[in-house]
Amino acid sequence: MIDRLIEKIKEKGAPILAGLDPVYEMMPAYLKKEMFERYGKTPKAVAEMFYAFNCRIMDEIADIVPAVKPQIAMYERYGLDGLECYLKTVEYAKNKGLLVIGDIKRGDISSTAAAYAAHIGGVEIEGTHFDPWKEDAVTINPYLGTDGIAPFLPYCRDGKKAIFVLVKTSNPSSGELQDRIIDGEPLYCHVADLADKWGEESIGENGYSMVGAVVGATYKEQGELLRKRLPHTFFLVPGYGAQGGKGADLKNYYDKNGLGIIVNSSRGIIAAYQKDPEFAPADQVGREFAEASRKAALAMKEDLLRGRE
Amino acid sequence: MIDRLIEKIKEKGAPILAGLDPVYEMMPAYLKKEMFERYGKTPKAVAEMFYAFNCRIMDEIADIVPAVKPQIAMYERYGLDGLECYLKTVEYAKNKGLLVIGDIKRGDISSTAAAYAAHIGGVEIEGTHFDPWKEDAVTINPYLGTDGIAPFLPYCRDGKKAIFVLVKTSNPSSGELQDRIIDGEPLYCHVADLADKWGEESIGENGYSMVGAVVGATYKEQGELLRKRLPHTFFLVPGYGAQGGKGADLKNYYDKNGLGIIVNSSRGIIAAYQKDPEFAPADQVGREFAEASRKAALAMKEDLLRGRE
Repeated sequence: MIDRLIEKIKEKGAPILAGLDPVYEMMPAYLKKEMFERYGKTPKAVAEMFYAFNCRIMDEIADIVPAVKPQIAMYERYGLDGLECYLKTVEYAKNKGLLVIGDIKRGDISSTAAAYAAHIGGVEIEGTHFDPWKEDAVTINPYLGTDGIAPFLPYCRDGKKAIFVLVKTSNPSSGELQDRIIDGEPLYCHVADLADKWGEESIGENGYSMVGAVVGATYKEQGELLRKRLPHTFFLVPGYGAQGGKGADLKNYYDKNGLGIIVNSSRGIIAAYQKDPEFAPADQVGREFAEASRKAALAMKEDLLRGRE
Repeated sequence: MIDRLIEKIKEKGAPILAGLDPVYEMMPAYLKKEMFERYGKTPKAVAEMFYAFNCRIMDEIADIVPAVKPQIAMYERYGLDGLECYLKTVEYAKNKGLLVIGDIKRGDISSTAAAYAAHIGGVEIEGTHFDPWKEDAVTINPYLGTDGIAPFLPYCRDGKKAIFVLVKTSNPSSGELQDRIIDGEPLYCHVADLADKWGEESIGENGYSMVGAVVGATYKEQGELLRKRLPHTFFLVPGYGAQGGKGADLKNYYDKNGLGIIVNSSRGIIAAYQKDPEFAPADQVGREFAEASRKAALAMKEDLLRGRE
C-alpha cells in the first residue's frame, strides 16, 4: 500500500491527504434542505448530507490529492446511518482512484485486535471472503503494545495494506503521556522503535515498511528527529493548516528523495468555502462550495512544494 | 452510572460483568443452520447468530449479573450488519435491566473525541436529541491525553454516564509501554493519576467518580497498589478466567465495603458450554447451551465471594 501511495504521490505531484471529517456545522444550507426534506430531521439525513458533501469534494480534488482520510468518529457519531455513509465514502473514493486511510485509531488486545483487523483484512465466512470496510490502510493506537498490533501485520506483509501507528500526535496535550521520559528518552521514541520493529517484515520496493507512523506537523523538532530515527517508516502528518503546521515546517520530515510523508488537512480543505471570501456563506452557497476545496488543495500543494525546496 | 452499578451489584450479590464478545467459532450449529438458511452465508447471517446467541445468554444470566460489556470489535468485524447487532444487543440488555459498558476503547483528539462522545452523550440535530449507541458507559484509550478525555466528561458530571480509562490492561504485552518507568514510576501510575484528576468533578454518592479505570486481574500487585492510590476510582477488571485471574487474586482490589470493582468474564461465561462436559459440543448442542453460561456465572459468583472474604 505504501508503494502504491508513493506512486500516487508522484503522479499527483504533492503528498496531500484530504481529511474527510465532516461536521454538521460545515454543511451548506442547500444540502440540509434537500436531505431534511427527504429523510426528516434524522441521523440518516445528516449522514446523507455528509455523503453528498464528501462526493462533491472528491469530484473536485481527485486529480490533486493521492489519498483521503475519513475520520470514522465523525460518522460513528450518527450511529449506523453515519457508518453507512463512512463505508459509501470509502467506496466512492476508491472508485475515483484515491487511496483510503481509515482514521479509526483502534487499539485492543489479541483476539479483539484480530477482529478490528477486519478493517484491512476482511473476514472469512465458511470459505467466502468479505471485505466489510474496504480501507487501504488504517490508523492504530499502540497503548496496548505488540498484542494489539500483531493481528494487523499479516495483511501488511504482502504489501497490499498498511497501518499507521500513533507515535507523536499533533494535539496540544499529546505530551502528557507521549513526551514523558523513559530511560532517557520520551515515550514516543520508544513507540517509534516499536513501529520500526513491527514493520521489519514488510519493507516495500521503495524502502518503506507497511507500518507507518503518525507524526504531527505541530512538533517540528520531534518530527525531524523521528525522520532520522526511522528511515523505513512512512509518516502520516496531521496538524497542517487549521492546527498550525505549515509547509516550511516539514522540510526535514521528507527523505532525500522528497518523499516519506503524506500531510493531512481536514477542515482546511473540506470547509475551505467557510473561510474563503470568494464564496457565499453556508446559508447561501450552492454546489460550488467544493470549488473552494479545490482551491485550498492547490494552495496546499504549492505551500508543500515550496516548503520542501 | 457508577452509583446505579453499585446498586445493581448489591442487588445481584456479586460484581460480575459478562463480556458479550461472540466469535463465529462459538456459535452452536443450530444457530448457524437457522441463520444461513435465512440470510445465506453472509455477514448478516453471522450478525443474526450473534444476536440470538447474546439474547439466549442474557435471558439465562440477567438475574445473576449486574451488567454486560459487549466488545464492539467483535461486531465491527462484520461491518454494518455486525454493528446493527451490537446496537440491538445493547438495547436488549437495557430492556433486561442490565447496565451496558460498551468496550469501544476509542481514543482521539478534541473534535474527534467529541464525536466519539456521542456513544454516551448522543447527538443533537436541529434541537432534537438522538442516542445512536445507548451505552451507559464506555472504555476509553488515554494515549492522546486530556484532549481525548475532556469531551466525555460533561456527560459524566451529572452521574448519568461513565467512562473507564485504560490504565493497566490484562494482556501479556501491556507492560511494553504501560510499565515503563517515568519519574520513578510506571506509566500506568501516571495514567492512574490523570484518571483520578479527570474524575474529580463527578464523584457520586458512593464516593466513586464517573471516571473509572481498567485494571487487569492478571497483574495482582499492580492492582492492589492502584486500589490504594485511587480511592475514588471504580475498577473494571478484565483478565478473570480464560486469561488466568482468580477470585482470590482480587481480594485487595475491593474497598473496605467489598465494593469498588466489577470483574469481567467473556469466554468463561458466553462460551461455557464448549468446556463443560455436561453439554453437547457445538455441532449438536441446542438452545440449552446458554444454561452452561448460567452455571458458569453462578460458579464465578461463588469464586468471587469466596475470594473477597
